[in-house]
Amino acid sequence: MKTLKIGLIGTGFMGKAHAIAFNAASSVFELPAKPVCELLADVDLVTAESRARAWGFARATDDWRTLVEDSDVDVVDICAPNFLHKEMALAAIAAGKHVYAEKPLALSTADAEEMVVAAEKAGVKTLVGFNYIRNSATQLARQIVASGEIGELIHFRGRHNEDYLLDPQKPHDWHTQRATAGAGALGDVGSHILNMAEFLTGQRITEVCGQLQTVIPTRLKADGSGMAAVENDDQAQAMLRFDQGLIGNIETSRVAAGRKMGLAYTLTGTKGAIVFDQERMSELQLYRHGDAHGRRGFTTLLAGPEHPDYAAFSPAPGHGLGYNDQKIIEVRDLVEGIINHRPLYPDFREAARVNRLIDAIETSDQTGQWVTVP
Amino acid sequence: MKTLKIGLIGTGFMGKAHAIAFNAASSVFELPAKPVCELLADVDLVTAESRARAWGFARATDDWRTLVEDSDVDVVDICAPNFLHKEMALAAIAAGKHVYAEKPLALSTADAEEMVVAAEKAGVKTLVGFNYIRNSATQLARQIVASGEIGELIHFRGRHNEDYLLDPQKPHDWHTQRATAGAGALGDVGSHILNMAEFLTGQRITEVCGQLQTVIPTRLKADGSGMAAVENDDQAQAMLRFDQGLIGNIETSRVAAGRKMGLAYTLTGTKGAIVFDQERMSELQLYRHGDAHGRRGFTTLLAGPEHPDYAAFSPAPGHGLGYNDQKIIEVRDLVEGIINHRPLYPDFREAARVNRLIDAIETSDQTGQWVTVP
Amino acid sequence: MKTLKIGLIGTGFMGKAHAIAFNAASSVFELPAKPVCELLADVDLVTAESRARAWGFARATDDWRTLVEDSDVDVVDICAPNFLHKEMALAAIAAGKHVYAEKPLALSTADAEEMVVAAEKAGVKTLVGFNYIRNSATQLARQIVASGEIGELIHFRGRHNEDYLLDPQKPHDWHTQRATAGAGALGDVGSHILNMAEFLTGQRITEVCGQLQTVIPTRLKADGSGMAAVENDDQAQAMLRFDQGLIGNIETSRVAAGRKMGLAYTLTGTKGAIVFDQERMSELQLYRHGDAHGRRGFTTLLAGPEHPDYAAFSPAPGHGLGYNDQKIIEVRDLVEGIINHRPLYPDFREAARVNRLIDAIETSDQTGQWVTVP
Amino acid sequence: MKTLKIGLIGTGFMGKAHAIAFNAASSVFELPAKPVCELLADVDLVTAESRARAWGFARATDDWRTLVEDSDVDVVDICAPNFLHKEMALAAIAAGKHVYAEKPLALSTADAEEMVVAAEKAGVKTLVGFNYIRNSATQLARQIVASGEIGELIHFRGRHNEDYLLDPQKPHDWHTQRATAGAGALGDVGSHILNMAEFLTGQRITEVCGQLQTVIPTRLKADGSGMAAVENDDQAQAMLRFDQGLIGNIETSRVAAGRKMGLAYTLTGTKGAIVFDQERMSELQLYRHGDAHGRRGFTTLLAGPEHPDYAAFSPAPGHGLGYNDQKIIEVRDLVEGIINHRPLYPDFREAARVNRLIDAIETSDQTGQWVTVP
Repeated sequence: MKTLKIGLIGTGFMGKAHAIAFNAASSVFELPAKPVCELLADVDLVTAESRARAWGFARATDDWRTLVEDSDVDVVDICAPNFLHKEMALAAIAAGKHVYAEKPLALSTADAEEMVVAAEKAGVKTLVGFNYIRNSATQLARQIVASGEIGELIHFRGRHNEDYLLDPQKPHDWHTQRATAGAGALGDVGSHILNMAEFLTGQRITEVCGQLQTVIPTRLKADGSGMAAVENDDQAQAMLRFDQGLIGNIETSRVAAGRKMGLAYTLTGTKGAIVFDQERMSELQLYRHGDAHGRRGFTTLLAGPEHPDYAAFSPAPGHGLGYNDQKIIEVRDLVEGIINHRPLYPDFREAARVNRLIDAIETSDQTGQWVTVP
Repeated sequence: MKTLKIGLIGTGFMGKAHAIAFNAASSVFELPAKPVCELLADVDLVTAESRARAWGFARATDDWRTLVEDSDVDVVDICAPNFLHKEMALAAIAAGKHVYAEKPLALSTADAEEMVVAAEKAGVKTLVGFNYIRNSATQLARQIVASGEIGELIHFRGRHNEDYLLDPQKPHDWHTQRATAGAGALGDVGSHILNMAEFLTGQRITEVCGQLQTVIPTRLKADGSGMAAVENDDQAQAMLRFDQGLIGNIETSRVAAGRKMGLAYTLTGTKGAIVFDQERMSELQLYRHGDAHGRRGFTTLLAGPEHPDYAAFSPAPGHGLGYNDQKIIEVRDLVEGIINHRPLYPDFREAARVNRLIDAIETSDQTGQWVTVP
Repeated sequence: MKTLKIGLIGTGFMGKAHAIAFNAASSVFELPAKPVCELLADVDLVTAESRARAWGFARATDDWRTLVEDSDVDVVDICAPNFLHKEMALAAIAAGKHVYAEKPLALSTADAEEMVVAAEKAGVKTLVGFNYIRNSATQLARQIVASGEIGELIHFRGRHNEDYLLDPQKPHDWHTQRATAGAGALGDVGSHILNMAEFLTGQRITEVCGQLQTVIPTRLKADGSGMAAVENDDQAQAMLRFDQGLIGNIETSRVAAGRKMGLAYTLTGTKGAIVFDQERMSELQLYRHGDAHGRRGFTTLLAGPEHPDYAAFSPAPGHGLGYNDQKIIEVRDLVEGIINHRPLYPDFREAARVNRLIDAIETSDQTGQWVTVP
Repeated sequence: MKTLKIGLIGTGFMGKAHAIAFNAASSVFELPAKPVCELLADVDLVTAESRARAWGFARATDDWRTLVEDSDVDVVDICAPNFLHKEMALAAIAAGKHVYAEKPLALSTADAEEMVVAAEKAGVKTLVGFNYIRNSATQLARQIVASGEIGELIHFRGRHNEDYLLDPQKPHDWHTQRATAGAGALGDVGSHILNMAEFLTGQRITEVCGQLQTVIPTRLKADGSGMAAVENDDQAQAMLRFDQGLIGNIETSRVAAGRKMGLAYTLTGTKGAIVFDQERMSELQLYRHGDAHGRRGFTTLLAGPEHPDYAAFSPAPGHGLGYNDQKIIEVRDLVEGIINHRPLYPDFREAARVNRLIDAIETSDQTGQWVTVP
């Protein structure tokens, strides 16, 4: 059996999620190659070594530059903080590696586009971790839209709201600084809903009109030496126009009390509608206007083996996928795309679009006008 | 016992709802005067007389001008089509009657303001039928916000979406013509959510940025003689700024597949949040960030006797209010306001604000910019 | 227009609900006769007179015996405490009046059957207030079952749980004494679900196996003079066999923490299923196994004008019925049945069945065996 | 790092779920030993070898007897059909292996108890796969009950209903034959809810009164040679008495239209209640009667890092666990129990109790009386 050797940078939240996925993927799916945990990097060597043992990596290092150039690494997987993505990716590309990176791809459109150019020139495969689009129920939503089952789309409503920075006592950290995070909620979680808006509708957003707000203007510095200004948005919203006439809106927040995984969308078409909430990630609500008089209503579809990618996890319907299962599907796509030389979605080019959308919304916030997405 | 004699114009959907409310109100609430069904007007005399008998009106007429001048009528209640509101209200005011009218108050801000001036000059009481603000759960939401229980508001999301014109076979009628309806979805159902945005938050909307769309551009003329252009919006959306820093957004539609009574809102504050959906009108979801670690979540409050105006309908919690019960509360407010010389809310002045908000959203749609609400 | 003159006994929770319904019914429905509030009785004359004025009753009395014999009363409506039902009903029947009574009909099967015999001998009409069966969504459930849309029924699950006696500080009152209440939760709220089990399925319960429990064994006497033993059940459950092979179960409680109007049922058939919860009284969940592969799920039907009796309240779907609307439908049935000489359901005979079912469950609890319902 | 070598028998639904869990467990949890996929058995060698490669097993065999005696196997994991559990387990125990087996442990209480005796005599560890008790939300329910947060339990309602045999065209197979399945729905899925009833309440079921029904009496033989009688129950229900006074009931079905993973329970206490539905496996509804007046209602707790075992999967709340994650927790318990010499729950002794409960319910169905659980 072929193998695909992984070099993973980062042992935090996302590093662990990726490690779980690499370990589980070939028992879930029939893969054309086995992902092999080859090398794990963390700035702290003790952590790198201990996580490597637990997660099944053959080797560990405290130097990510060593990792990207390691001859036994086929894919560099970047789960380091956002502000490091660019440097790491460019180095990996320069070394001829395929790159799998967490979102947002970069802190700015310029950075993202530099990465796109480098990757395309080098001919390496790239994949960015917008994992929620791989959830079975969301893939089903995409199928239903694409098939015309709910007619022509006339409205898209999306949000990705969480409350992880609601507490004003939470200190100033990388999230709240421009240099390390770029945009705030809009970049961190808003990037998911912007990508998803295009994924679900199969249309491109052409114009945006947006509004950003920093709700908690200052936070205590991490070293306790006083307050510092928060440099990016706590919440944002935008109206959208798509290239086929569809309109819609998105919201995003990191201070939305009560929302823990508040990614949700409503797709309204001329013949029906779809409603989804990631907090109930294995349910899709479907309304079809053509149903019999007196029997029209939203039907709760529980993800099951007849829906995309579910059967690999369980032959029995309604048993439920979890967050990490989305990453397993993502790894399947990574492996298949690389081994079978197929395009990966969303690659760096697609992820750079998300940066352009974020930029356009920020520009619109400043000008008070609609902005055309380049 | 005192009485308050009602002259009702219109026997359609809303005329009937008002009649039910007048008949039931004094058995539900302890009223300072008994509303008496005195005179009923409909353009068709047979209908007027038959409905008068059924609904307990003493007399009937096919001439609304007779009604507004009838010396035995204390309150003129206007449930006629929207384009007639202005003429009827001005005549009633001229005759010194209190006026109770359905929403939207007028087809334009200019008309609405003419009506405000006339009513205030004459010193009559006015009340406009934005009935959803009287629902017990929504009154509770207002209480919670006003008390500071969820902190300072930072975001308002509202929608009033229905699908009554989703079917493209539905003919061109008064809804779809500018001269008879004014704005489309925005005027018909959007007016509810605009009024409610200010009611719930206790803040004024100062700026809007909106977008309107006619989804079905032409419809068959009622006489079957060909197609005619739809003259107003099928769906609309807007971003909002309020006078105390709050931001938010609204959506409205008459072609939103699957939504039957799709008025819904989310109020997010610095210490909690409220979620409500009129399709489950006796439930309010409340999140409080101060709840114990591991026990935070949205609590479903079922309307009960400890909540505003519920106990008059039932001493037992969770038994459920219905649509018409909102109108009974509205009639209670009408009677108490008139008899006890208290301000009524929303009166013509308040309802004219809704017209101004609609105008501002339409202007913004045309200019592509934020518009300050006059 | 014909009239039907009502003599109402009782001004408490149910007396008021009936008064609201009498006042509203002819504006909601086209009735063959107008219910007229003629005479109101309460043990306290001041209360009787004050409620009569508010509720539109022509006259008041503090003597129910006067009421039942009043020549201007056509229907005696009994909303007095349960232990008085029998005496009042027998007197009304003796006076040749139709009788409309709240549930449970009587404290024992023997009493109930004496009332049945008297009413049938006298040829008067009777109706007992099991109002939840008149809710539009529940009527729809009955229609769906009867039409075979979910196939042949194979299982019924029902419950009517509330928590009005959960607080152990609530004193010993009529609810908790055998002489005034008969059975406890089983009689008070369990009677609803037993009646509904037969209404929904269209089948007769032939055998029961039940279990009762008094959770709070003693309560403080109302006069504070010490504790007294609770004499009936706080909660009960039973398994059921129906005459066409169906099996099922019911639960009932007055100490079920969190349940306010906890009447709920699941009807499972060979081709589908129905789920209903009275706390969301305008929703019915319908599953049809014949729906397309990958599109099977429970559909939330919002009560609308295409469903039984909804259109009289509103022409627009999803606007919601309330608790009192069920009583308005009940009054419509009362008036139509009497004026048009049609059978009323559930009449005394049907209500006496509920007493027999309660008795059978109590017997089963004592013997530890299945009991055949006489 | 220590290892624990696994010999897995079976490559079907459950075999695969176990394989996923073995592969993922040490990247999710900090384990005291790494589970190593050593040997995989399937009756078909080609299948065994192909699955072994995909799932990371070092070796494959078509002879389970070889596997149980393999000196490099520490734990025998039995995911073979139910009727083989006994023979395999006894052989594994005889070989001194720890045994991890799927439920139901055995087809009869006698068989189960033979297995218990053998295991305890041999001093090997045993664990049976009642995985739903390991779900974070359900562990939280157990915590809440045990802490007294909802007071003393007064009622337990549980069900495990599915519809996998609803279609009467599904052929007669091992599920429907006594010799291969033992009890029907009651054994297959009912076993989960019986185990869970005792797990959640911390009490023992002492008496049962049950009822079984075969809804589809005959099915086509697998070879198409005619119809054969279904030999066990399609649905069952029972009332329960627990050793500390609690009462309750359970339902189970394999023909319950619409239910895909219909394990659900309600725990009612003197101070609150818990409601759970496995189809929304990351949510727990909690009601506390001590909450403020007007603020009492069921709170939806989304599983998060403050709840049992969630944080290992994600540091962020609301992200959702899936079916296979329960098995990962189960594997963690298996490894920790064996390596740290701690008791495992539920072991063979505990699982044999479930067989006794099933037997008692079947006996009660035959006698029509309450049966004391031995």
